[in-house]
Amino acid sequence: MSITSEQREEIRQTRATSSQTLRPTVAALEEILYEPFQVLDHGFVRVIDYMGDDSAVVQAARVSYGRGTKKVSEDRGLIMYLMRHWHTTPFEMADIKFHVKLPIFVARQWIRHRTASVNEYSARYSILDKEFYIPEQQHLAAQSSSNRQGRGEVLEGDEARRVLEILREDAERTYSNYAWMLNEPSDEQAPDEDRSGLARELARMNLTLNTYTQWYWKANLHNLMGFLRLRADPHAQYEIRVYAEAMLEIMSRWVPLSHEAFVEHRMGSASLSRTAITAVRRMIAGEKLTAATSGLSPREWRELCQTMGIEQV
Amino acid sequence: MSITSEQREEIRQTRATSSQTLRPTVAALEEILYEPFQVLDHGFVRVIDYMGDDSAVVQAARVSYGRGTKKVSEDRGLIMYLMRHWHTTPFEMADIKFHVKLPIFVARQWIRHRTASVNEYSARYSILDKEFYIPEQQHLAAQSSSNRQGRGEVLEGDEARRVLEILREDAERTYSNYAWMLNEPSDEQAPDEDRSGLARELARMNLTLNTYTQWYWKANLHNLMGFLRLRADPHAQYEIRVYAEAMLEIMSRWVPLSHEAFVEHRMGSASLSRTAITAVRRMIAGEKLTAATSGLSPREWRELCQTMGIEQV
Amino acid sequence: MSITSEQREEIRQTRATSSQTLRPTVAALEEILYEPFQVLDHGFVRVIDYMGDDSAVVQAARVSYGRGTKKVSEDRGLIMYLMRHWHTTPFEMADIKFHVKLPIFVARQWIRHRTASVNEYSARYSILDKEFYIPEQQHLAAQSSSNRQGRGEVLEGDEARRVLEILREDAERTYSNYAWMLNEPSDEQAPDEDRSGLARELARMNLTLNTYTQWYWKANLHNLMGFLRLRADPHAQYEIRVYAEAMLEIMSRWVPLSHEAFVEHRMGSASLSRTAITAVRRMIAGEKLTAATSGLSPREWRELCQTMGIEQV
Amino acid sequence: MSITSEQREEIRQTRATSSQTLRPTVAALEEILYEPFQVLDHGFVRVIDYMGDDSAVVQAARVSYGRGTKKVSEDRGLIMYLMRHWHTTPFEMADIKFHVKLPIFVARQWIRHRTASVNEYSARYSILDKEFYIPEQQHLAAQSSSNRQGRGEVLEGDEARRVLEILREDAERTYSNYAWMLNEPSDEQAPDEDRSGLARELARMNLTLNTYTQWYWKANLHNLMGFLRLRADPHAQYEIRVYAEAMLEIMSRWVPLSHEAFVEHRMGSASLSRTAITAVRRMIAGEKLTAATSGLSPREWRELCQTMGIEQV
Repeated sequence: MSITSEQREEIRQTRATSSQTLRPTVAALEEILYEPFQVLDHGFVRVIDYMGDDSAVVQAARVSYGRGTKKVSEDRGLIMYLMRHWHTTPFEMADIKFHVKLPIFVARQWIRHRTASVNEYSARYSILDKEFYIPEQQHLAAQSSSNRQGRGEVLEGDEARRVLEILREDAERTYSNYAWMLNEPSDEQAPDEDRSGLARELARMNLTLNTYTQWYWKANLHNLMGFLRLRADPHAQYEIRVYAEAMLEIMSRWVPLSHEAFVEHRMGSASLSRTAITAVRRMIAGEKLTAATSGLSPREWRELCQTMGIEQV
Repeated sequence: MSITSEQREEIRQTRATSSQTLRPTVAALEEILYEPFQVLDHGFVRVIDYMGDDSAVVQAARVSYGRGTKKVSEDRGLIMYLMRHWHTTPFEMADIKFHVKLPIFVARQWIRHRTASVNEYSARYSILDKEFYIPEQQHLAAQSSSNRQGRGEVLEGDEARRVLEILREDAERTYSNYAWMLNEPSDEQAPDEDRSGLARELARMNLTLNTYTQWYWKANLHNLMGFLRLRADPHAQYEIRVYAEAMLEIMSRWVPLSHEAFVEHRMGSASLSRTAITAVRRMIAGEKLTAATSGLSPREWRELCQTMGIEQV
Repeated sequence: MSITSEQREEIRQTRATSSQTLRPTVAALEEILYEPFQVLDHGFVRVIDYMGDDSAVVQAARVSYGRGTKKVSEDRGLIMYLMRHWHTTPFEMADIKFHVKLPIFVARQWIRHRTASVNEYSARYSILDKEFYIPEQQHLAAQSSSNRQGRGEVLEGDEARRVLEILREDAERTYSNYAWMLNEPSDEQAPDEDRSGLARELARMNLTLNTYTQWYWKANLHNLMGFLRLRADPHAQYEIRVYAEAMLEIMSRWVPLSHEAFVEHRMGSASLSRTAITAVRRMIAGEKLTAATSGLSPREWRELCQTMGIEQV
Repeated sequence: MSITSEQREEIRQTRATSSQTLRPTVAALEEILYEPFQVLDHGFVRVIDYMGDDSAVVQAARVSYGRGTKKVSEDRGLIMYLMRHWHTTPFEMADIKFHVKLPIFVARQWIRHRTASVNEYSARYSILDKEFYIPEQQHLAAQSSSNRQGRGEVLEGDEARRVLEILREDAERTYSNYAWMLNEPSDEQAPDEDRSGLARELARMNLTLNTYTQWYWKANLHNLMGFLRLRADPHAQYEIRVYAEAMLEIMSRWVPLSHEAFVEHRMGSASLSRTAITAVRRMIAGEKLTAATSGLSPREWRELCQTMGIEQV
């Protein structure tokens, strides 16, 4: 992971000083506050700050005084109810802030989630580090033949070797040309006094999309779940899914009841269309349906069979 | 203020238990956490939770590790710079959550600020208390004759007396009819067993707009300032301005550097149009301008004279 | 309906002049453009402008040139697919603008949908008309005994009569006191020269929540559907549902394919939790479940039985 | 410009068919509807659709019937007033949709404007064309020595030549390796039957940030102005500013009154802090200020001198 020893020391120091607060505090999250969770080869996710916990959700739903009811069992039932019925506003009442290091092509997907606050490292202003994502061989997948935005089998042998070589060489070369064009002093080279050096905001265009960037990303629990629902899904691209999985793990420490409800009613749920409901009613009544008799499109029928664990006919 | 003794006790208890946290903590805000600040006759504002402080703004601007730089003087300069140049995203990195009790007509203005999270007491679900806003006589202003959405002189004598009487009587009567239609058990009346009682979601329509409601309202610092800039302004309606003023006071405890920059570059600032800049240049060069020679519309000229403290000609 | 004859004439004139445009145009929507659809006793909804149609959704999904493919059958399949898989961004690419007249308590629910543009008639600036919502007797429902935010049986006899009397009398009296406090010239009264008249921004607080207001409300198709999904739902309060139903009807004229997909995959759909999927799998396999053996909470089991049309045990 | 002859033909056909509409129509915008405006070497901006015009702003401000007042002079004054006083909601009532082709590093800046709707060409799903931005030599600027995110002098001679060579060679090589890894049939190569081909979602990471992408981007007039205010500003990076300038030109065709007000009160305006107002008052009164006596920070004093066209002392 690309945490320098200096940064490690800074994290250690930050974790060494605690304060008293009257705010709701989550012990399981405090345990890992500031600590980086490694993701991909050089990336990480770490929690920088948070506000509220499961009781903030309950409190908002009750618009009551104090820290809500005492019985966890009632809170759990209420949170399950809110999640099941898409009463989403109480989940906006808790916030979390992450520091994330991630490849640019992942950042481009991530940023499409608009209802979050973001401050990214600026390559207009500063110089990007020489760090880029190179997949492990087991993640070098072929294009899926059935799904235009999916992955198929893992590449093997010469093809895999050559792909890794290309990714590494091209990233190395474009980065080294980036550094040359900048003509700035670094550990590896002294600037050439005869050259002006290209502006940073221009030189960066020579970098490849697997170069790492970093940002602070803050979202409320509702919008975090919107992100996780799409990005922790098996259909999400592997390289963003691993970030979402780390964040889902963090969410279970932070708001365990909301996490449970989220897994039950979002991650593991299925939506049935009007016609699919009719099909399921007939199946429950004992009828054997086929693609042809289901009333559904072939694709929706296939998906329904998968959800219901029945053999497609 | 409409805090019951039971609520006071609950606040006292909540304030009695503190925890350890590794998060940034603001002592001046902890001092008043949960405590209600009275606003209008029955309203209040109180802070329920917060995340981050001035250093969160600095940290986001620097996208650096740890809690930002050590020197407060540098942080102050950076925050001033960000505010002056409308670099707004770092101010999104700190959040605050309020519990507010306010008249419905104030809530209707307030809710137009869309980038906040809100959970309001539901009169569909619960019964509203018998509390309504009656202005103090000194705030019973006449319609302004020059500004269609402004106030003029204070009403006096019989007219003032009669207005207060009307406001009180109409609110009392409509509330008492609301209670009658609900036909629910209360301290003041037993339900009439022969009646069904009107649904709460319907009965509420009989209440007047000065009835108090309450909500949790959470915003990040950037959006809080957007709210304060409009609502703590002298042109804002008095009844919402007093809430904004209480929140501005709270903001100065929470993020003193951002508060200072906000007062300097937003609250006390003025925007000059292209043509107004030309007019000011000429005045600095010693020219005496009049409405006619300024190049500005009469109204903009008047506003410029006020800003620059010069006599209108 | 509260359209004055002057307004009718204005609508007639606006509809009398058409222009040539190269933009996509929807004949079925042009037919009713500007025309008010009556809702409740004095309210209405009318379309003021629109941008795009079903092909805008298709075009965005394909990010292709021109007006998309020629075959409606392919467009229909794509729109169904997008809706089923919650690919929501293409539905943001079409917009519609409404002019709505509605009671204030309905406006208060409506405005909670934040991702829309709104300009409301200002009672700070202008004087509200003497129009308030009085329910028809068949909609005077009692409080539901099972659902705290629902309606039960319709009130009858004396109770109903008295409720209607109260609603009418209180609205009349508070409005007439509002007018008196304003002391402005009107058709019904000359101002009292000895009085200053209360500022409009204050006088309005005496009005009841069933007073009508009006606004322009613009949303893109995605956010319109977010609104309709909640507000055209049988659990929505009747008084906002009738607006949503009128808008759903308008939507079917505007974007018939998206409307069909919306009814199929949103309005008529059901979401099954992880546990509910297991329960349905067992039922499809022939098992007879009961509340006790289903693994679901009593409430979720009841809802699942309703969805699947099976008798609760 | 990278419009193929096939696309040209499609645009020609689309422009050949017009319809009748009752909606407000802007002749000057219809003239250029669908037509690409070239930006940079391979980019473009073109208007795909629009809704409303200056009268939509006026109408929303008046919440009145029909198409607003007849006199353009009154509309102009109202729009100037709204702009000057930051009454922004009426400007949300008109929308415009663009089709834009732009380098990825420009897209990364652009997307930070969150309140817009976007559909981007997906390199997960499709193959990107071989097109990348190579600056003209006159835009090959050195890093500014005074401003960390600015440009200095233009590079010359060998350094400029070498930079252009690098940018071209690296983009060519990474693209050609991208194509090789994909192993898909193209005009230039037949796929190698012995290889599987890397998934598109992975292969794209080898592309450099100057590769062109494209998207549909829709915003309302208020948010469009938010974008233009930052991106048509002289401090914006040249490569995004040229897009903003083309859009500003388009805006002047679409909403000429709003455009005039925007130039007067936003683009050409200046904001004076509380302290700067005091300084200007003193200068108008005839006092000669210096950095030391102005009360301002050196940087703010320098900016004020520039705005007021006075010599810095």
